[in-house]
Amino acid sequence: MEQRITAITLGVDDLGRAKAFYEALGWRSNTPPEMEVVFFQAGGMVLALWDREKIAEDSGIQLGTGYGGVTLAYNGRSPAEVDAVIAEARAAGARISREPGETFWGGYAGVFVDLDGHPWEVAYNEGWVLGEDGSVTLPH
Amino acid sequence: MEQRITAITLGVDDLGRAKAFYEALGWRSNTPPEMEVVFFQAGGMVLALWDREKIAEDSGIQLGTGYGGVTLAYNGRSPAEVDAVIAEARAAGARISREPGETFWGGYAGVFVDLDGHPWEVAYNEGWVLGEDGSVTLPH
Repeated sequence: MEQRITAITLGVDDLGRAKAFYEALGWRSNTPPEMEVVFFQAGGMVLALWDREKIAEDSGIQLGTGYGGVTLAYNGRSPAEVDAVIAEARAAGARISREPGETFWGGYAGVFVDLDGHPWEVAYNEGWVLGEDGSVTLPH
Repeated sequence: MEQRITAITLGVDDLGRAKAFYEALGWRSNTPPEMEVVFFQAGGMVLALWDREKIAEDSGIQLGTGYGGVTLAYNGRSPAEVDAVIAEARAAGARISREPGETFWGGYAGVFVDLDGHPWEVAYNEGWVLGEDGSVTLPH
């Protein structure tokens, strides 16, 4: 197994509402509506939105309740970008579960929770090198 | 917000056990053990393992029970690679929640569930172009 991830699928309760939320953050998808799934190209991988019951069934796993312990992260290029993205998410209807501020690891971050309960940490971390294409490289 | 994801953190119950599982799949991390987190460079992003209670608290969200509707995917380059990765995961102690086989969307895939309940679909999908570096590009 190569050390990489191709896609993340987020289970959602209302696909149209979920798609509109990510569109409000500036994301664009060209998935035809009849597919009943939405694929966003996200850097070198894919973020997919799909019915919560269907992704559970397709994964062969029983749906639990609430947060299952998976948090996505979006690293920005400055603390100001963190503030801007959190403001954007708030305007799009997200709950801000942690207001932006200094973190215990020395960076600056906040967390928004999308309309289906999936949290995103929005962070600025000096130690993680962001490429022009948004790819991140861990320090050696 | 740019259309990309920097990191995914998986909440785990036993960090050493979780790290050993991904190492058994061939993944390597250079995170110092005293950090109490494990970062894997995963293509242009990061897969992190962290205590389940801590990631919930850090995300400002209450931990639910079981699967929260997030499934990761790893696209291989052939059906045979799907079989090989599923076999590797089984050998590393994963539960195979869906044995590899043809899928409703015309590809070939199986699903393993890691030791902390996080499912990975391992798939071969002709329509998704995989680069040499493992990045994936959606069809236009």
